[in-house]
Amino acid sequence: MPSFVAPSRDSRFIINEVLRIGDLANLPGFEGASADIVDAVIEEAGRFASEVLAPLNAPGDQQGCSRQQDGSVTTPAGFKEAHRQFRESGWGTLSAPEQFGGQGLPHVLGFAVEEFLSSANMAFAMYPGLTGGAVNALLAKGSPELQQTWLPKMVANQWLGTMNLTEPQCGTDLGLIRTKAEPQADGSFAITGTKIFISAGEHDLAENIIHLVLARTPDAPEGTKGISLFVVPKFLLGDDGNPGERNAVMCGAIERKMGIHANATCVMNYDGAKGWLVGEENKGLAAMFIMMNSARLGVGIQGLAQAEAAYQNGVAYALDRRQGRALTGPADPAEKADTLMVHPDVRRMLMDARAFTEGMRALSLWAGFLVDLTHKAASEEERVAADDLLGLLTPVIKGYGTDLGYKVATDMQQIWGGHGYIVENGMEQFVRDARIAMIYEGANGVQAMDLVGRKLAKDGGRAVQAFFAEVEKEWAAANKDERLAGLAGSFAKANGELQTATMWLMENGLANPDNAGAAAYDYMHLTGIVALGLMWLRMARTATAAIDAGSDEKPFYEAKLITARYFGERFTPEAGALRRKLEAGAEAVMALPEGSFARG
Amino acid sequence: MPSFVAPSRDSRFIINEVLRIGDLANLPGFEGASADIVDAVIEEAGRFASEVLAPLNAPGDQQGCSRQQDGSVTTPAGFKEAHRQFRESGWGTLSAPEQFGGQGLPHVLGFAVEEFLSSANMAFAMYPGLTGGAVNALLAKGSPELQQTWLPKMVANQWLGTMNLTEPQCGTDLGLIRTKAEPQADGSFAITGTKIFISAGEHDLAENIIHLVLARTPDAPEGTKGISLFVVPKFLLGDDGNPGERNAVMCGAIERKMGIHANATCVMNYDGAKGWLVGEENKGLAAMFIMMNSARLGVGIQGLAQAEAAYQNGVAYALDRRQGRALTGPADPAEKADTLMVHPDVRRMLMDARAFTEGMRALSLWAGFLVDLTHKAASEEERVAADDLLGLLTPVIKGYGTDLGYKVATDMQQIWGGHGYIVENGMEQFVRDARIAMIYEGANGVQAMDLVGRKLAKDGGRAVQAFFAEVEKEWAAANKDERLAGLAGSFAKANGELQTATMWLMENGLANPDNAGAAAYDYMHLTGIVALGLMWLRMARTATAAIDAGSDEKPFYEAKLITARYFGERFTPEAGALRRKLEAGAEAVMALPEGSFARG
Repeated sequence: MPSFVAPSRDSRFIINEVLRIGDLANLPGFEGASADIVDAVIEEAGRFASEVLAPLNAPGDQQGCSRQQDGSVTTPAGFKEAHRQFRESGWGTLSAPEQFGGQGLPHVLGFAVEEFLSSANMAFAMYPGLTGGAVNALLAKGSPELQQTWLPKMVANQWLGTMNLTEPQCGTDLGLIRTKAEPQADGSFAITGTKIFISAGEHDLAENIIHLVLARTPDAPEGTKGISLFVVPKFLLGDDGNPGERNAVMCGAIERKMGIHANATCVMNYDGAKGWLVGEENKGLAAMFIMMNSARLGVGIQGLAQAEAAYQNGVAYALDRRQGRALTGPADPAEKADTLMVHPDVRRMLMDARAFTEGMRALSLWAGFLVDLTHKAASEEERVAADDLLGLLTPVIKGYGTDLGYKVATDMQQIWGGHGYIVENGMEQFVRDARIAMIYEGANGVQAMDLVGRKLAKDGGRAVQAFFAEVEKEWAAANKDERLAGLAGSFAKANGELQTATMWLMENGLANPDNAGAAAYDYMHLTGIVALGLMWLRMARTATAAIDAGSDEKPFYEAKLITARYFGERFTPEAGALRRKLEAGAEAVMALPEGSFARG
Repeated sequence: MPSFVAPSRDSRFIINEVLRIGDLANLPGFEGASADIVDAVIEEAGRFASEVLAPLNAPGDQQGCSRQQDGSVTTPAGFKEAHRQFRESGWGTLSAPEQFGGQGLPHVLGFAVEEFLSSANMAFAMYPGLTGGAVNALLAKGSPELQQTWLPKMVANQWLGTMNLTEPQCGTDLGLIRTKAEPQADGSFAITGTKIFISAGEHDLAENIIHLVLARTPDAPEGTKGISLFVVPKFLLGDDGNPGERNAVMCGAIERKMGIHANATCVMNYDGAKGWLVGEENKGLAAMFIMMNSARLGVGIQGLAQAEAAYQNGVAYALDRRQGRALTGPADPAEKADTLMVHPDVRRMLMDARAFTEGMRALSLWAGFLVDLTHKAASEEERVAADDLLGLLTPVIKGYGTDLGYKVATDMQQIWGGHGYIVENGMEQFVRDARIAMIYEGANGVQAMDLVGRKLAKDGGRAVQAFFAEVEKEWAAANKDERLAGLAGSFAKANGELQTATMWLMENGLANPDNAGAAAYDYMHLTGIVALGLMWLRMARTATAAIDAGSDEKPFYEAKLITARYFGERFTPEAGALRRKLEAGAEAVMALPEGSFARG
């Protein structure tokens, strides 16, 4: 069975040394985030993830969830107890607002913990993970009354939350939603309709489940302009504020899926269920987007998390398994064969995994930090700047992060050879679980269109200009250090490709929007490479500074420099290919008549 | 449930129009392969695959195989009857030698049929598929007596074959084999040991199972020089030549795997089982390689086959599912949404799938044709030339073909969005089944090393020189046609990258073998792109000729030209990135101390 330890040294490196959040003690929420506190949280959360959650991962996959006759859903053995511990240790409340019982710590720390939980047990981590998104939506759009009613127990993870968007006829295109919301005399609404693919839609982990549901009021305009958001609890609250009468929302079935078996993916039937409007009528999509953006970052972290867990088990196997000899001559002549570590092609996969996971960790923690700055930076200008960058990076973190997460999980399974295909060894679960992250919360093609169609053009391109300015600044600093010249050089080349591609998009995307559509996916990956490169420049600079300062952890920092070099040599060349591909435009992509696709 | 139709028009195009095997009627085996016969075989085999095998694919995955208390293995419902029909229709005997009851048709035709079977039901197709490899090994190395004893019923698929290489401590590194073979007074050997991951090791489809087993005789030299090959039947034959006494070989367990659930992957225990030496003592590896090379081509075809099956179902969904609007304005204003076909990013994935499957189909059928030429070409020179090319292309077909097969299966699942993750829709099975093809018969990293470490250098680089000559000839012909200038130009660029990379390998691989090891995987993919490009040049030339000749199937040929253009624009740019990556060499790949890989 695979094992997992939290990459805590790496998380601390990024939070304390690269992002240096300790320097921001003057900002609200950061005053309590000294390096000591950060280290303690990281260590404790890491221990919880590896000791409590990781051992339940493979058994949970094998057992799955089951729906009972009465519509209730049973989670795998051990999940209930693990969730009790999770709740009591307060892992769900870390960066929730103190006003509603949260600990008010920075989101960057919450993101680090989320990664550990997701590495250890992705299906488990989704139960509280979705709650975080629901909390954010209520915080942003809920009335004070709704907030006071629902948030304290959701923040405490006593009640868990869900997102209800998808319907059988409606996935990406939310304008097709049919679920109805009829206003009632008491100011509530009666919700009727069927939602599908509802993660954690029903389970036995919490006293109540709070569904955030998109639906249409009578006479609402067609399409996305007629969608409203409602909060619909599983149990209505009694006068004491505790769950009482059962609401008319039931789990009709749970789906059989490729992976994340331990998370109940439900068909939810609303049959006149009582719900309350969140925010304004017909403005539900904007409210839901708050939840979705938060969820998209979480899903990007899932990609990273599965890659990290798979990486650790790839390393363990490569260090242990003996097969063949080093090409340069036996490394362990006394043994019948050398370990897999001697084979360059095995190293290639492991180094790919390191370059991705460490770069992606830095990128996702930077995003967490940007979330903090959007709320807490001293000036409006800084808050807006953080929000710009966060908006630009969100689809990249989700799309590029989960594509590469799946690729790395697949590579790590590959290191195990035939043994990687066997269920008991657990490597194939990483791949199956990682796969969903490319699909849900907006399939990666939708992320690419969000980046190219919305985020690039928004506010006259302010976000991408800010990103390029950040890149320029970081590159100039790194380029001064001879030891980083190689990385800086290959990074500059990749960044040049991104700038060229951006210009190409501006010129050709407007002339024919299909050019933007056909370029979007490659552009998203190109941005991902440059964003990771930016992280590697920062990390490499931090590492050289630590070495220069005579750190007694030299091997850690030297490993950073080796991996940074590897990133420059083996990730950045892809940028040119992506630019050339997307510049080919939409013509050949769209030329085939529909009737010519089928075989015969 | 997904459906499958054989891409018979495409197979006929390649066999009859591109490879033009009808022109070779003067060669033995080809005289019976007129276009009429080819078309009839393709149509009938396609019908069998889609009507008999495809409906058993998803149920077989769900039910899997089960081992009974007595060690017997039960295949999923319907498999036995399907195999009876398979055997009686003679689909297993197509290109087997007439001397032993085969039909003696060209291998190129056998390969086309193999693809259909594997698309329809990969787990099923493996039962007779492995038999084909065992037959080839016995044909090449077995004594006339062994051949007469075993081949007729194996060719008839009355008895099925297996390959027994892997042991718990020994996968890629066959030198570590421990299974023992003790000579007996009657000239047979007593085989004792444990083999794992034996596909089709035990089942209920045939009257007997004929295992080809690698083992060591007493006093055999250490390593790969002391391995011999044995034929070990499940049932010993009685005096009448029919299965009689049970031999001491038993299935100890069947593995639980990520996919191909309907193929029994067995732990096989040999407990003094009676076996007979195939070929010379201690020369078993060479004998097994005949079987493996045949199997590797078959596995490459599995990659293609899963991509093709997934593609067809991706197309079906994209034509049917309505979601969102075309970027250029509503395509079906009367409907609430357009089909997925209007979205450039969906088209991108479908066109990727077309460019790969059609190019790969041409490459694998060319390989089948080369197999035929190695046996049947008129001159020794031609036979050697075919063998050179086949040897070079085999690891590329296996490695590149299965990597891309998995990628395309994943992309087609992506088109289905959340519905692609649901078991009932069958898209995730294509991914799980395709995954094993990258692992077994030599993991793809091993294929890359076979290409770079063995095939490139063999006979002073004769094979790769022949390949480049073929490329040059084809390019020059295509380049004359203005309509193909775009494809020819981008192809030339990719081929230039391959030539540069080949030079780099020659210079740097010898100086430090780790450079070859670190470059191998990228080099294999680079070769794959150029090999597929060569196929697209051929197919595009054939298509323009057909259009010029006024064919009444113009849409088919025009689709070829559009897909050829797409290949040039969207596949060839990768070549430059691969060349740049591999030229970075082994230093950063190998630099990290082993102790720095673990996390904490």
